[in-house]
Amino acid sequence: MSFRFYLFLFLLFFSSTTTALWPIPASWSKGDEVLRVYSTLSFRYSDNIVSSSAELHKIIHSATQRLLQFMKEEKYTPPNKLIPIPERNAKTVERMYVEIESDDVELGPDTDESYELIIPVEDQPITCHLKAKTVYGLLHGLTTFSLLLYSPPSSADLVLPDAPHHITDRPRFHHRGLLLDTSRNFYPETDILRTLDVMSWNKMNVFHWHIVDQHSWPVKSEVFPELSEKGAYDPNDMVYSKREIETIVEYARMRGIRVIPEFDMPGHTYPISLSHPEIMTCLDQQPNWNWYAAEPPSGQLNPILPKTYDFVRQLITELSSWFPDKFWHTGGDEVNTHCWESTDSIREYLSSNPGTSISMVLQTFLNVEYDAVRGSGKTPITWEEILLNQRMGLAEDVVIQVWTSSDRVKQVVDMNYRVIVGPADYWYLDCGHGAWVGDWVNGNSWCDPFKTWQKMYSYNPVQGLSGEEIKYILGGEVLLWSEQADTTNFESLLWPRSSAAAEILWSGATDEHGNPRSVQTALPRLHDMRFRMVGRGIRAEPLQPLWCARTGRCNLPPSMQ
Amino acid sequence: MSFRFYLFLFLLFFSSTTTALWPIPASWSKGDEVLRVYSTLSFRYSDNIVSSSAELHKIIHSATQRLLQFMKEEKYTPPNKLIPIPERNAKTVERMYVEIESDDVELGPDTDESYELIIPVEDQPITCHLKAKTVYGLLHGLTTFSLLLYSPPSSADLVLPDAPHHITDRPRFHHRGLLLDTSRNFYPETDILRTLDVMSWNKMNVFHWHIVDQHSWPVKSEVFPELSEKGAYDPNDMVYSKREIETIVEYARMRGIRVIPEFDMPGHTYPISLSHPEIMTCLDQQPNWNWYAAEPPSGQLNPILPKTYDFVRQLITELSSWFPDKFWHTGGDEVNTHCWESTDSIREYLSSNPGTSISMVLQTFLNVEYDAVRGSGKTPITWEEILLNQRMGLAEDVVIQVWTSSDRVKQVVDMNYRVIVGPADYWYLDCGHGAWVGDWVNGNSWCDPFKTWQKMYSYNPVQGLSGEEIKYILGGEVLLWSEQADTTNFESLLWPRSSAAAEILWSGATDEHGNPRSVQTALPRLHDMRFRMVGRGIRAEPLQPLWCARTGRCNLPPSMQ
Repeated sequence: MSFRFYLFLFLLFFSSTTTALWPIPASWSKGDEVLRVYSTLSFRYSDNIVSSSAELHKIIHSATQRLLQFMKEEKYTPPNKLIPIPERNAKTVERMYVEIESDDVELGPDTDESYELIIPVEDQPITCHLKAKTVYGLLHGLTTFSLLLYSPPSSADLVLPDAPHHITDRPRFHHRGLLLDTSRNFYPETDILRTLDVMSWNKMNVFHWHIVDQHSWPVKSEVFPELSEKGAYDPNDMVYSKREIETIVEYARMRGIRVIPEFDMPGHTYPISLSHPEIMTCLDQQPNWNWYAAEPPSGQLNPILPKTYDFVRQLITELSSWFPDKFWHTGGDEVNTHCWESTDSIREYLSSNPGTSISMVLQTFLNVEYDAVRGSGKTPITWEEILLNQRMGLAEDVVIQVWTSSDRVKQVVDMNYRVIVGPADYWYLDCGHGAWVGDWVNGNSWCDPFKTWQKMYSYNPVQGLSGEEIKYILGGEVLLWSEQADTTNFESLLWPRSSAAAEILWSGATDEHGNPRSVQTALPRLHDMRFRMVGRGIRAEPLQPLWCARTGRCNLPPSMQ
Repeated sequence: MSFRFYLFLFLLFFSSTTTALWPIPASWSKGDEVLRVYSTLSFRYSDNIVSSSAELHKIIHSATQRLLQFMKEEKYTPPNKLIPIPERNAKTVERMYVEIESDDVELGPDTDESYELIIPVEDQPITCHLKAKTVYGLLHGLTTFSLLLYSPPSSADLVLPDAPHHITDRPRFHHRGLLLDTSRNFYPETDILRTLDVMSWNKMNVFHWHIVDQHSWPVKSEVFPELSEKGAYDPNDMVYSKREIETIVEYARMRGIRVIPEFDMPGHTYPISLSHPEIMTCLDQQPNWNWYAAEPPSGQLNPILPKTYDFVRQLITELSSWFPDKFWHTGGDEVNTHCWESTDSIREYLSSNPGTSISMVLQTFLNVEYDAVRGSGKTPITWEEILLNQRMGLAEDVVIQVWTSSDRVKQVVDMNYRVIVGPADYWYLDCGHGAWVGDWVNGNSWCDPFKTWQKMYSYNPVQGLSGEEIKYILGGEVLLWSEQADTTNFESLLWPRSSAAAEILWSGATDEHGNPRSVQTALPRLHDMRFRMVGRGIRAEPLQPLWCARTGRCNLPPSMQ
């Protein structure tokens, strides 16, 4: 018996699972006919599309071109299925009829992303039918269509098995994000563009760009050019200019992805000190940096100086105009009160203003920061500590992002705030890679162990919540912090594990029977998605030996369950 | 103050550390002159080289061409130093005089790899002097020379700071290896060739090719072509032919690297069953595979059948001729006695031969296997269990490789066997990446946590040994098992962590004062080596944020030490 024979037996047994989709659609009925598809697929559009704006046409054209490109170039054969070769007289898919209800092209937190894809078998040639409420639903439908196509070995044609298909699909959560930290180490524009591509294949729709932090300031502000001239790792080669940021935002929008930038304040701001030391406190305290910050180098904005506020207002006003999204991440994590308590000017301020406190000073800072954000027409997001640890008063519009533990989601919901979940115990992509502090021989990752795809897949963003509470969960994010990541290794850290979370966010953590999704039934589909991503040139890491991917025979033995 | 200014201050302070070398030479004196080097460097050879064999010329030519190529293409500026621009009238290095004592080109476990590199400053133009006992020492000297060269920003010339140099260098251990498992997932030839390049830059000299295992058989035997036709992941595209293996062996030899293949027996042999089921036992037992093997699929050679022995002898005879090295790894790990005890033919054999036992049967198998190895002129290596767990009788020539724990090294030494160390608690590169068994939601890596470079660097292969005992340690290996690695991610798992072990193996675990090497003084040099590898196109992962690499200010605070 060869591997192939095994595979054949295996596939005979599970033959109904030929076509895989990741993330799995809300509703999907299929048949057993094998269609042929040519890369000359043509598109017909509903009248309201034809008569709509150039903007809408641009988004649709960009997406159909990507699909046709895949159909021309992608030669994908999955590891765990025998793709049937269509019969001589097999029907062919030659057209797709595309229809939308609204020609509104605004992309926001409430955009309707649902779609319906019908691939009939009655006619010859076949016209598929793709319907959506908005153009962004259409994009997901086209992605789904691309995932239904396979190349049988030694055949030039594409096949579309399991027809007819009727897919009705919509996301479980509006916010399906990926955070990339571009401050601790820098990523060139191409890395970000490629990441946006992969996100779109996984139906993720928020790029949370943790663009600055305490290690470098790669943003080329035009109002404060000195920030990146002195604070970027390289003021020419390791910066994002306004033009590059606009390119990234537009590239994302063409894929239905919102870009939410994070300008973390008042902590995690050390690089500002390289050009504006006068508005900073407790700069690069050594050797006991841990008294002043979570990581070296320490440094926070000085919250008692009018010029700090001028700076914050001007910066947010300028940069908010580069990012059209309605959300704005204000940071707010790991504010170190000892840093401020040890600063002379702040101590003097507190003693000459009886009744004031560090806490009140922080509240003032946040009020100014959030007002600037709202003044730019945006909704502030903050990390959880501002609410739960610093216990600041926050207006009800503020969105809270929970990271320290999945346990804290309910605390925030109980306070009636909207939540984005991305807990370190499930969805941190950097955990398990050891300590990065230079001389720590026995140091381990603070959030050990490594989060496997299975662990990530087992997280339910609404776990422990009921009824009305669930509505506070906007969605979630996977997070890659870059202390130990850069262009050399980040892609394998992101994929395919982020795909696991992407399915939870799109399809929900429970299946059609209300049971938690099973890693066992997910695995063959995730292998399929991983190999497809690899085929598209992505360094998605292997989940198992190829033998296991092919046979599915590498599960826990009963005695270990 | 900008980062650059910081850097400048930092470098002023530590200016004596401008030139970095990894691994650090045994003896190195240097000065403070900055030389200019042109990529037209010419070589002069001692008379015995000139009159020596074509073989010797080939090795030297190959190495000098690589050096000249780097000098032409590499534009390397380290993250943590300002490279001085040579003065207008700086002296230039124009020639290298190369000398060897012996023109013997055999590469083996006792090859002398020492070299001496002298870069004087007296003459103009300057002739460097490279001397070695053998051509393989020369290769290391040329590698060292390449690591002394830097490109200052915005200068076309190379500079060689800190001249004059006088380096006298030799390896602490003869065996400095890297194991790559090409069975669980496949690696194309180019991945292996590139890995050999990086090994040579790190002065590693043994590629332990764990070429087959229980998941696939990628070796295209000409005597048993059915092995890879049925047992390879792909009989055409995922195999190593004789020609490819010879290419790899030759490529390695040109870089002073021995290739030791491992044909693991009698366990870890499942793919043989796909063409020779008649000589196998307990094949792919499910679902309780763990009763029969360490990993699915189970399967061991049947040790009571004459045809098994015929197969083993023929296979070793054929394949040993493809690998010229004097060592041959026989495997021998994780032999599962329950597998054999549950096999009918073995049970019958034992009951019809009173006085026999599983243990005696294993001993017979090993005798046959080792005799075949010795008959091919090679020395058998085995994993430790054969000696320590199975307690087999082994001749004194057998080399024992210890993997389960660093604690077991001394046990083997106490039994007077030579040892290769590569313990999972220090030098396993795959640890800390979670469990790969499909449906294990809370499973972690069995050898958690991740082994950081600091941890790897803290291992002393002769720890706890004294005097005569130390001589039993041939050296060590870092190991990458490929359940969760393949071409997409392996390079970041290998580098720069393997460099940490490479320095321990080349330079020894203690410094010139007999103290354990310090991760603190190693870190800036390892950053330098890592960025140089990245500059040479290798996906060596970042150890820290670039800010830390530049400033060296990310160490443990005193309160955490």
